[in-house]
Amino acid sequence: MTNTVQTAVVGVTGYAGGELARLLLRHPRLKGKPPVFAGRVDPKDAARGGVRLAEIHPQLADSNGNGNLKLEPFSWELLLSRGVEVLFLATPHEQSRKWVPEAHARGLRVIDLSGAWRLTESANRAVYAFDDDGSEQAAATQAQAVYGLPELHRAQIAGARLIANPGCYATSIILALRPLVAAGLVDLGHGVVADSKSGVSGAGKSPTARTHFMYAADNLSAYGAFTHRHTGEVLEQVGIGASEIIFTPHLLPIPRGILSTIYVRFRETQTATTIARVYHEFFADSPMIRLYDKTLPQIQYSVRTNYADIGFQLAADGRRAIVVSCLDNLLKGASSQAVQNLNVMLSWGEAEGLE
Amino acid sequence: MTNTVQTAVVGVTGYAGGELARLLLRHPRLKGKPPVFAGRVDPKDAARGGVRLAEIHPQLADSNGNGNLKLEPFSWELLLSRGVEVLFLATPHEQSRKWVPEAHARGLRVIDLSGAWRLTESANRAVYAFDDDGSEQAAATQAQAVYGLPELHRAQIAGARLIANPGCYATSIILALRPLVAAGLVDLGHGVVADSKSGVSGAGKSPTARTHFMYAADNLSAYGAFTHRHTGEVLEQVGIGASEIIFTPHLLPIPRGILSTIYVRFRETQTATTIARVYHEFFADSPMIRLYDKTLPQIQYSVRTNYADIGFQLAADGRRAIVVSCLDNLLKGASSQAVQNLNVMLSWGEAEGLE
Amino acid sequence: MTNTVQTAVVGVTGYAGGELARLLLRHPRLKGKPPVFAGRVDPKDAARGGVRLAEIHPQLADSNGNGNLKLEPFSWELLLSRGVEVLFLATPHEQSRKWVPEAHARGLRVIDLSGAWRLTESANRAVYAFDDDGSEQAAATQAQAVYGLPELHRAQIAGARLIANPGCYATSIILALRPLVAAGLVDLGHGVVADSKSGVSGAGKSPTARTHFMYAADNLSAYGAFTHRHTGEVLEQVGIGASEIIFTPHLLPIPRGILSTIYVRFRETQTATTIARVYHEFFADSPMIRLYDKTLPQIQYSVRTNYADIGFQLAADGRRAIVVSCLDNLLKGASSQAVQNLNVMLSWGEAEGLE
Amino acid sequence: MTNTVQTAVVGVTGYAGGELARLLLRHPRLKGKPPVFAGRVDPKDAARGGVRLAEIHPQLADSNGNGNLKLEPFSWELLLSRGVEVLFLATPHEQSRKWVPEAHARGLRVIDLSGAWRLTESANRAVYAFDDDGSEQAAATQAQAVYGLPELHRAQIAGARLIANPGCYATSIILALRPLVAAGLVDLGHGVVADSKSGVSGAGKSPTARTHFMYAADNLSAYGAFTHRHTGEVLEQVGIGASEIIFTPHLLPIPRGILSTIYVRFRETQTATTIARVYHEFFADSPMIRLYDKTLPQIQYSVRTNYADIGFQLAADGRRAIVVSCLDNLLKGASSQAVQNLNVMLSWGEAEGLE
Repeated sequence: MTNTVQTAVVGVTGYAGGELARLLLRHPRLKGKPPVFAGRVDPKDAARGGVRLAEIHPQLADSNGNGNLKLEPFSWELLLSRGVEVLFLATPHEQSRKWVPEAHARGLRVIDLSGAWRLTESANRAVYAFDDDGSEQAAATQAQAVYGLPELHRAQIAGARLIANPGCYATSIILALRPLVAAGLVDLGHGVVADSKSGVSGAGKSPTARTHFMYAADNLSAYGAFTHRHTGEVLEQVGIGASEIIFTPHLLPIPRGILSTIYVRFRETQTATTIARVYHEFFADSPMIRLYDKTLPQIQYSVRTNYADIGFQLAADGRRAIVVSCLDNLLKGASSQAVQNLNVMLSWGEAEGLE
Repeated sequence: MTNTVQTAVVGVTGYAGGELARLLLRHPRLKGKPPVFAGRVDPKDAARGGVRLAEIHPQLADSNGNGNLKLEPFSWELLLSRGVEVLFLATPHEQSRKWVPEAHARGLRVIDLSGAWRLTESANRAVYAFDDDGSEQAAATQAQAVYGLPELHRAQIAGARLIANPGCYATSIILALRPLVAAGLVDLGHGVVADSKSGVSGAGKSPTARTHFMYAADNLSAYGAFTHRHTGEVLEQVGIGASEIIFTPHLLPIPRGILSTIYVRFRETQTATTIARVYHEFFADSPMIRLYDKTLPQIQYSVRTNYADIGFQLAADGRRAIVVSCLDNLLKGASSQAVQNLNVMLSWGEAEGLE
Repeated sequence: MTNTVQTAVVGVTGYAGGELARLLLRHPRLKGKPPVFAGRVDPKDAARGGVRLAEIHPQLADSNGNGNLKLEPFSWELLLSRGVEVLFLATPHEQSRKWVPEAHARGLRVIDLSGAWRLTESANRAVYAFDDDGSEQAAATQAQAVYGLPELHRAQIAGARLIANPGCYATSIILALRPLVAAGLVDLGHGVVADSKSGVSGAGKSPTARTHFMYAADNLSAYGAFTHRHTGEVLEQVGIGASEIIFTPHLLPIPRGILSTIYVRFRETQTATTIARVYHEFFADSPMIRLYDKTLPQIQYSVRTNYADIGFQLAADGRRAIVVSCLDNLLKGASSQAVQNLNVMLSWGEAEGLE
Repeated sequence: MTNTVQTAVVGVTGYAGGELARLLLRHPRLKGKPPVFAGRVDPKDAARGGVRLAEIHPQLADSNGNGNLKLEPFSWELLLSRGVEVLFLATPHEQSRKWVPEAHARGLRVIDLSGAWRLTESANRAVYAFDDDGSEQAAATQAQAVYGLPELHRAQIAGARLIANPGCYATSIILALRPLVAAGLVDLGHGVVADSKSGVSGAGKSPTARTHFMYAADNLSAYGAFTHRHTGEVLEQVGIGASEIIFTPHLLPIPRGILSTIYVRFRETQTATTIARVYHEFFADSPMIRLYDKTLPQIQYSVRTNYADIGFQLAADGRRAIVVSCLDNLLKGASSQAVQNLNVMLSWGEAEGLE
């Protein structure tokens, strides 16, 4: 177990990258050891040593100097010369497909926030456009990837060389559903519905017609029904067939936060006490989960926290339930989960820097 | 068929009442015949003849004098002396229970926007606190009530003496679901999920902890799962058993609009063409329905319109579908539906004053 | 006086263009005579006769067929063959500079919503990048332009061949300030402050960093202090020197609406009665102005109306006042003002189609 | 200098109280020494030892036990028995008028977040309804009060027994204006305009017509022109006469944040360099101020931070400027300022627990 580590972040310019920078900069194990921020830099900015972090994310400007840290032109030499051991990639999945093998070749461990390495079954991977050429190298890299949901894979994450940080929607659904399925309670043949709603930051920082204020504000829209890329993660991690679940994401007129409403039917009649116990047992050692039991969590209480909140309500017949899970899509749905993975990977306290 | 009619509105102070006033004031059949607005008025306001409409709803102030219309102290004498023939009640359900028999006794026809007379089965009525004393009079009144969804009950609405204007959530679900169920396509035993999201105006004008900007803004919360009062309307109008559907409403951080995402499983494999045809046939004569077919409607396109918008998407297996319906909870979910009912009741064009 | 007219709209794809289409389609003088919508159209769309209006602005889809109207490829031949007499340009100012002379050459009258022809003094025009080459033709066209604020220039608008429809901010400031300045009440040497706040639709439909939901939501930002293009309109129309007023626009996290808070000092002590009288006299014949007197108007009451609302409050010393004016930037700040100009130009009722 | 201190908070149920609790619970000097939370508690809650903090502020629920802290029934005995030395009052001003002398009598030092003790001139105090009876005790207490803006009164705050924590609007205006006035640059005779805009949390937690989502959302409204209670603080702290400044607050449709746009005229022509230097010198030792110089700060960058951000722009004539200041009304405008005052009072690092 190391006491500290030198990290690097590629992709700090996006929303998740900005949150990741904030979390790493205040992590107690990384005091005085800020990440190396590397990426594409305009030549004229490169000439002045890079772009100051505070220019990219004004909210990171503060009086202790972090805002003066710079985004520097990426090169493997830069990372190696700074002694980087763990690399966070908050990059498009195509880039992550290419860079992870290169990082491994240089001895770096990687926590990848993209969808590049999350899926083990090729049928599920088909939704990604990346070059899944079946090459030996790609297969070898994939074989080393651990799905970075510590609540499910804590043991494998410790020591992993490649952590595939989960998707935000997937995290909210898997955490709500896996405990019930693992306990054998859910009538899967009957089908599960996951109706999810996410804030606009989930759509990324590039200005598009959908992220225009005039489109998103005062609106709600469903999209990607039956086809959203996070579906495969849910199938693989929950252990459920494609015909057994419908997942529909919606775009909420709020900056951040996900709420998933999940509808299940039980094989047998259940009590609220039983259901609550199943969740408490499953998450007994999970510091980043807050169980609300029979109260339903709301987006406002999980936003800007690093927690996933889970609650449920049972029908009078004891056979049907809704489970509601909430989290911040940029934190437990992305960056704080990445830091949690760092903690577990290095055998630090799982919640260090996250409370 | 009458060419015009004298109306009255009790309950103009609320959101639905304000929209109802706006619609009636610009209805081509009611030109120069504004509604009588009656209700509780402070003695000091009564002394000056009532409260100007523009004081209650500033957006109704305009240069053609409507803003000078007044809310006058209610009495049956006032209504009779003005020749009122049709009374709109936008009042709490307890008040509607009491007043409808009194209105009938005076020969008035009533369009009631509350939940007082919507439900025919006593099991469904139990969610309302009104005095359902099983009295002969109450039963006689209920027997005259027609559920005011013109798309389902056009023939009975024409000539009705009491129209029970539907709930906003119920309208959005029934319109999406009834065509499929009526066509015998839905596997009801499998269960239907209706995940609905509504803007804050649906929670009423009284300031409460839940309608506080700080609670509603940047938030999403589920509430009333398994227990919401509109459930009974859905059961009765769709023709589905309580164990065959789960309805969960959510509070959206927007002023108005409802989007319901409805999950169904079909008894047999279907094509999008078939599904589209079922909807087009069902709504062939329904001017207030806009069918989006395989495109999913969004709240922004139905808000501030009098339409209900319906679209759907089919899973690749042809056995499962989501149906999305959108409407403005204050319009097609309340006030424009009431005007549509007025039109049908008096054999006017169903969309008059609504396009 | 003509009873009707054939119009055309170039620039229907933007927000103001969409509102203009809505207003013209329901204008009582233009029944059955929809505008010709012309503009740039993709070849493949041109092959199918153009793009349906409902594809561009889904909220214009309705059951009376307007949504089936098409945006057709622009050519002067198209306009002439359809008998177009009045052309609305909702185009960038560069384009309006070029097209107005071409339209005039073909006998069309033009209502231009851009900033191309609003300014008579070249110092004020300098903020626009258009080719102000001092050509004889440009000067001749400019000489025909009337600033399209009917409340100030009603007589000249009637019969004009080119109406320069005012800027949204400028409208909100001029209407509040001109009556006081015209009455000689304002101590101009002391300086006037116009602090304006606008919804995001004012920033246009193109997705940019500033119109991204994540930038605009939950935020407020000042911009363009001392340099905003609408300043010149205020100077010319109010009759005030550049050193006598400061105008600061702000970007509000709402879709539409402008509120301007204007601070003035009077040359002599005034009473609220005097100030109110000045406004009432100035706007005695102006149907699109709503005077709130000592009550301050709010954005919520003017949004989605065609009115400008004006109120004021006086300091106890009678020497200082704030004037607040509100309007919908897409309506009285753009499209309904254009229709008002059409009405005045053709000697129709000024408020026809706007109430 | 003490290394730690036992604090108590009365008024934890409000928005500022909740933020204060959050800040004190994570303050490095107060580790393991949580505040005593005291106030009015229902008898049935008192019977179970009080109300858990997590029930009042769900966002304070976390896995390290803070959420289990309780709001206990207030009594001076409770506070004394727990060894409380510093008392935070986040209470209505009437209550603070009464309680501060009682706290002093028991040897407690007080940081009062209300308006009870901020004003030294009785003319300015008149806007408060509190019993300003001119009693000897009240005068003696007032004489001990220090206006808790560390950037202006650092020396007096150290050692003070009563700190009157400033109003949120006042903080935003004074910090922007005082440096320029203190340097003698501002032409006060010409008058200053402070146009301020605040999020809804500034209106308090009680549900009212104005805090209803339907009123505040998609809206902007001015209120309290010429009469707002914070005016007196600005007059006294900036050193400016009532006739020399106009302050107009506006209600923004956002949860939190204040932006003040301040308009000044200089006695002589200035350069941006001079203005920037004035601010940098004035705030040389002020860790909670972020100077943006010629860039204008935005609400989004100061919200949820403990900083006040200040920027300015100068007219081309060098005689007029706008200054924009932004802060979070619940933090630098209330609770983090209270913690900053605690730090200064106890000679701790001024920014401890705030970065």
